[in-house]
Amino acid sequence: MTSVADRTTDEHLTDALGRPSDDEVAQLDAWWRANNYLTIGQIYLKGNPLLRRALVPDDIKPRLLGHWGTSPGLSLIYAHVSRLIRRTGQETIYLAGPGHGGPALVAAGYLEGTYSDIYPAVSQDEAGLLRLFRQFSSPGGIPSHVSVTTPGSIHEGGELGYVLVHAFGSVMDNPDLLTIAVVGDGEAETGPLEGSWKGISFINPTRDGAVLPILHLNDAKIAGPTVLGRKDPAEVRELFEGHGYEVLEVGGDDLPGMHHRFAATLAEAWGKIRAIQRAARAGDWDGRRPRWPMIILRSPKGWTGPDQVDGVKVTGTWRSHQVPLSGVKDNPEHLAILERWMRSYRPEELFDTTGAPVALVRGLAPDGDLRMSASPHANGGLLTRALDLPDFRDYAVEVKTPGRDHAESTRRLGDLLRDVYRGNPDRFRLFCPDETNSNRLGAVFEASDRAFMERVTDADVAIGRDGRVMEVLSEHNCHGWLEGYNLTGRHGMFATYEAFAMVSASQTVQHGKWLQEAKRLPWRAKVPSLNVLLTSTAWRNDHNGFSHQGPGLIQVVLTQRGDVARVYLPPDANTLLSVADHCLRSRSYINLIVIDKQPQLQWLSMDEAVAHCAEGAGIWDWAGTDDGSTDPDIVLACAGDVVTMETVAAAQILRERLPKLKVRVVNVVDLMTLPRPKDHPHGMSPTRFTELFTDTVDVVFAFHGYPGAIHQLVHGRPDTDRFRVRGFIEEGTTTTPFDMTVRNRASRYHLVMDAINNAKRLPRGAAELKAWCEQKLAEHETYVVEHLEDLPEIRNWTR
Amino acid sequence: MTSVADRTTDEHLTDALGRPSDDEVAQLDAWWRANNYLTIGQIYLKGNPLLRRALVPDDIKPRLLGHWGTSPGLSLIYAHVSRLIRRTGQETIYLAGPGHGGPALVAAGYLEGTYSDIYPAVSQDEAGLLRLFRQFSSPGGIPSHVSVTTPGSIHEGGELGYVLVHAFGSVMDNPDLLTIAVVGDGEAETGPLEGSWKGISFINPTRDGAVLPILHLNDAKIAGPTVLGRKDPAEVRELFEGHGYEVLEVGGDDLPGMHHRFAATLAEAWGKIRAIQRAARAGDWDGRRPRWPMIILRSPKGWTGPDQVDGVKVTGTWRSHQVPLSGVKDNPEHLAILERWMRSYRPEELFDTTGAPVALVRGLAPDGDLRMSASPHANGGLLTRALDLPDFRDYAVEVKTPGRDHAESTRRLGDLLRDVYRGNPDRFRLFCPDETNSNRLGAVFEASDRAFMERVTDADVAIGRDGRVMEVLSEHNCHGWLEGYNLTGRHGMFATYEAFAMVSASQTVQHGKWLQEAKRLPWRAKVPSLNVLLTSTAWRNDHNGFSHQGPGLIQVVLTQRGDVARVYLPPDANTLLSVADHCLRSRSYINLIVIDKQPQLQWLSMDEAVAHCAEGAGIWDWAGTDDGSTDPDIVLACAGDVVTMETVAAAQILRERLPKLKVRVVNVVDLMTLPRPKDHPHGMSPTRFTELFTDTVDVVFAFHGYPGAIHQLVHGRPDTDRFRVRGFIEEGTTTTPFDMTVRNRASRYHLVMDAINNAKRLPRGAAELKAWCEQKLAEHETYVVEHLEDLPEIRNWTR
Repeated sequence: MTSVADRTTDEHLTDALGRPSDDEVAQLDAWWRANNYLTIGQIYLKGNPLLRRALVPDDIKPRLLGHWGTSPGLSLIYAHVSRLIRRTGQETIYLAGPGHGGPALVAAGYLEGTYSDIYPAVSQDEAGLLRLFRQFSSPGGIPSHVSVTTPGSIHEGGELGYVLVHAFGSVMDNPDLLTIAVVGDGEAETGPLEGSWKGISFINPTRDGAVLPILHLNDAKIAGPTVLGRKDPAEVRELFEGHGYEVLEVGGDDLPGMHHRFAATLAEAWGKIRAIQRAARAGDWDGRRPRWPMIILRSPKGWTGPDQVDGVKVTGTWRSHQVPLSGVKDNPEHLAILERWMRSYRPEELFDTTGAPVALVRGLAPDGDLRMSASPHANGGLLTRALDLPDFRDYAVEVKTPGRDHAESTRRLGDLLRDVYRGNPDRFRLFCPDETNSNRLGAVFEASDRAFMERVTDADVAIGRDGRVMEVLSEHNCHGWLEGYNLTGRHGMFATYEAFAMVSASQTVQHGKWLQEAKRLPWRAKVPSLNVLLTSTAWRNDHNGFSHQGPGLIQVVLTQRGDVARVYLPPDANTLLSVADHCLRSRSYINLIVIDKQPQLQWLSMDEAVAHCAEGAGIWDWAGTDDGSTDPDIVLACAGDVVTMETVAAAQILRERLPKLKVRVVNVVDLMTLPRPKDHPHGMSPTRFTELFTDTVDVVFAFHGYPGAIHQLVHGRPDTDRFRVRGFIEEGTTTTPFDMTVRNRASRYHLVMDAINNAKRLPRGAAELKAWCEQKLAEHETYVVEHLEDLPEIRNWTR
Repeated sequence: MTSVADRTTDEHLTDALGRPSDDEVAQLDAWWRANNYLTIGQIYLKGNPLLRRALVPDDIKPRLLGHWGTSPGLSLIYAHVSRLIRRTGQETIYLAGPGHGGPALVAAGYLEGTYSDIYPAVSQDEAGLLRLFRQFSSPGGIPSHVSVTTPGSIHEGGELGYVLVHAFGSVMDNPDLLTIAVVGDGEAETGPLEGSWKGISFINPTRDGAVLPILHLNDAKIAGPTVLGRKDPAEVRELFEGHGYEVLEVGGDDLPGMHHRFAATLAEAWGKIRAIQRAARAGDWDGRRPRWPMIILRSPKGWTGPDQVDGVKVTGTWRSHQVPLSGVKDNPEHLAILERWMRSYRPEELFDTTGAPVALVRGLAPDGDLRMSASPHANGGLLTRALDLPDFRDYAVEVKTPGRDHAESTRRLGDLLRDVYRGNPDRFRLFCPDETNSNRLGAVFEASDRAFMERVTDADVAIGRDGRVMEVLSEHNCHGWLEGYNLTGRHGMFATYEAFAMVSASQTVQHGKWLQEAKRLPWRAKVPSLNVLLTSTAWRNDHNGFSHQGPGLIQVVLTQRGDVARVYLPPDANTLLSVADHCLRSRSYINLIVIDKQPQLQWLSMDEAVAHCAEGAGIWDWAGTDDGSTDPDIVLACAGDVVTMETVAAAQILRERLPKLKVRVVNVVDLMTLPRPKDHPHGMSPTRFTELFTDTVDVVFAFHGYPGAIHQLVHGRPDTDRFRVRGFIEEGTTTTPFDMTVRNRASRYHLVMDAINNAKRLPRGAAELKAWCEQKLAEHETYVVEHLEDLPEIRNWTR
């Protein structure tokens, strides 16, 4: 409950913030000049970092890289937000949508001292300055964009479009956090970014923190103008008011006028945020979506840079996007411009004789963890608390006989997640594009509604302002919110239709890259894993048709490094529960879990499931006929629920009709057990691989995804040519589930024929059985054409 | 030039359109009722299609599938647009964003007679009706969504988000076309859709046609309310005015009131479109982006369906999204509701005794090709005219000696594309996210500016309202526009940074699915291929860092069927030109072309390049030492520009330092020559494969993409375990190009060591050479740490 005193304090603060004194403006300006100076130094210099003498060609880097254009805007904002933090104690992080302005953010961390704390070689003296400059965008150094190496960042500045989704994810269940999200006008043209303004429709002012979007319109992207930069400003304003924001505009290039105006605007925005939060937290909220503030900042691209170069206008145009002065080493005129430009910031006032920032500059930074570059929110592993998890065994399906009873496996997971919600009201959320019920996870609604700050009606079910289940019809929002939630130290799961996981595949790739690189930085604490549940899978989207049939994301995750990529294909409910428990406890992985939502045969008791998942792959001796023999005639392997059913069915057909054939059935839950240990840490030992698959017997492998995945995973194992893989081969339509297996040549009958075609020894009767299979398939063809019935009945299996 | 008479005609037409007579309303309503009746029939019935007797359980399908909720809205719009076409002769196509309303669009084609023309078994009589109903969402039938099987569609209704990008692409250089794009309020939540409203900033009213977006707000998606459905209507209006539209609103559920109001609104929209076009085409345009109209239509979800079921409100809520009445076969009450519901449309008035639609209903349809289901614009292959292509040989780089000179290969392609623009001002466009210059394709600006209808300034270069080069910082827009442009029969190319091609990977997947399925429908004429140029590749994004390094799209395209997927990795300019020419002439493929933009060594003369590309893969005997021997000691294979350079360099090292080792160098341009012919039509014959790779000698394969791709492609070839693949293994940062090859263990030195480790016979000196390579790599490590220099100098190669 916020008191009147708080309100008064806030109002006083807002007022003071909005009217910086001359001394404060001088300090802001000094910090900003220092930041700009360091930004330019990173782009250009490899010597003479303090300009103690005239620049000479040898001071200039051989290859000029980096992005100047957005940087002065980013650093201006940073300076003013730092002042806000210092005055208010507001916990804040800063996400740079135009993350190619990396040198500005690196310089900020350096001026705040964080950079030297983390990377002691980049010390706050002349030697450290030189290192700061030389490492930038250099071999053995740091990337040119805001990256995982940048302290204070949870947002990689490479691929554009995700700054707002990360920002909104970071503040969910994080009431004390303010996230500044700078949106570039280039980035603003992307679909994912445009789709993410609606984040405010899902942010609760009592329980969540706040995002302050700052749309930075500098009119140009790499090579030309931007749409928002060139639209009528009134129309731009209308657009964001239509998105639901209170739009605060500020712009210009006069100094110190811009400091005064930006300070006033930022103070106004903060005051409005505080007022919204304070009222709501005091119980004074009508439940309508607050009109959160956003700022539109108009400042010239490359502001404070050289106005013209070679007679051509640079500042304020796309020409300042990257390196406004080229060929500086060989062009004395450009060298002279660079020197004038850098000296215009008066470095001698900003750095002392040792090269350290002077007290005036240092003094702008907030203290300790309040520095944005040092915020633990941006190194979320530091704040991560393990989930309070129920015992997943309590949600087991009772399985006395494999393959007898059906259950909706994901429904059991839903029960588990309901209790994860109950036990962790401050640190677990499910993210799903409008499909929580469809994916049979609806039990979570017993613990929490869907979040929604727009109008709800009496007819609505399980939705409202207090909800914490995140449903929005946007894979980009779901995925990105979860990333922001994870990277600030909280846990979650993204559940989506398998085919449409490709919509956000690029986010999976980029987040994987982040996690991969973070593991190489000791100061980055591990964060909760990104758990992706793919359900409504290809094989059982028989009703929705070909567009809904695509197991592509497995293929994408397989490209990531072994220290991050995890792919699980639990065949039933109990294995799913075991896998999910493991994933929810894990850190800094991409965990892909693939299982359908429809009623499906159950195979393993909970104890068996736990043991099976611990191994990741194992022989199902009850399904085969090789009696533990080290020398089966054929191995039938499978990974994935539907293909497991077909494999066990094929084994049963073989057992009944060709009993002398020694068939081994192997099921793989953890796909990453297949590669060699040197290719993936989960890779099973050579001995174990031989135990399961032998070294010489042919393996008919029925795989959930595209067959090529298995071929690439088993590379390097003994005689891989013997692996005959059946999987999804892009044959689909609206049909029956069984017909999906027939179209993709992965039905039980196909597997039986494959087994016969490839078995080491063939008992009598094999030819007849093949003919029988062919006949079954022919009957199926007729059946499909003539009937509109559903799945042929699944027979039971007994041990 | 449009005359005053035209204007008067348009105004008269608009006026008449906006005030339909009672007879016209009766006809609209009859058609609408017929469409709704057929929609419900498709979802529910397998018998008794005309309700000639009471419904019995046996009339009901065993599995109830499909989506009712959006359908009545889709069909209402369809009816009114049909009337507009009939009255005005306006060429029009209809894209259904809520494409899950498939039965409504199928029913529309059926009522127009197109369906029976294409699928004669689905005749316009009772037998045909029964077939229409039974085929829907049934095995052997048609998908439940608008799909490639639906006449009149260029937009698959599965994955949401692309209706506006397809619509805008369809009208570019298509001045006479009006594309109606219905946007669902669920779809409107996706990022790609939100990012696509800005299409009007790129549409020129003189040369392009028009898109009329109809945002259909029915308040709910699968399981809950939508953001736009529940926002304050004033805010929604503001949002779209901010996007730049003139917003026309219409809503309600009263009849015939809604017919009158919708007719008036549609007429107003058409009148405004015509006025904009007429003025602009008469030279009366100030050059500012016109304020194009859009319609917001508010109607109840599941409108005209059962209001309540089992005491629960259905119509107007998410409960009507799919099948509002469940268990109809077994629930007499539901069966009775269904019968009442279907009879409420008075089928006896709509179909004659044979089952054919009555004249009143049929009479609403426009004539012939003007029927939206029969429009050739929606079967664009019918309108496709081959490009007038210059001779690509004219753009050749002169190559007298392989590996001596550098050239920016894509710059030559840019020259070619410039002349493609010149020769085809009505049917070729380049689509690129703000990187045309960066990708060295800037020569196109000699032939055309960038398209841009927002304000331009004197400082802007190569941009304006007459431009036809499409730059927007959105892969989703670029990809989708090109799809729409292709599917209406025009040619283009999408050029993008390799890593960020993953942003639109899902579109590549879905378009591939469309093309795959279209090939199975004889009535679908082949369309220009989707040409995707991936440049600024992983290996040469050394300056931009790890986020920019990802060859993932190759992996994605490999999952598509062989009748669609094509992947080319030209190693230099002349091979690129040859490949590009081939792709621009091809039809109905996804052509992925991968090559970097930086200066790179040139290998083949144009004649050699043409021969090499024709084979797709071949031995580079000048690079190897096996002297045409059938028995080399090792094969060094490569696919991709940078890895080709490393491979040739490795071969040179081996030739110089281990001259007795017989090394064969094989270069692969067409990746799809690697699989077996049964796996891909380009797959080379077993004989040819053996000629290149032998059957037994080890192959060190340096690949541009992830190594797993090669393992999966060569599956089934002789002894594939002998393929040792080097490729991109997710090791990257900001560094030098050469260091990228070292980090990924694909440098010349690694390849030499691989060759030595795997060669059949090893001459003396091999151990020393290995040690030398190790030393070189150690020196490189030191070098990287100590220097900030660029690429180590590349030595020359001579024949």
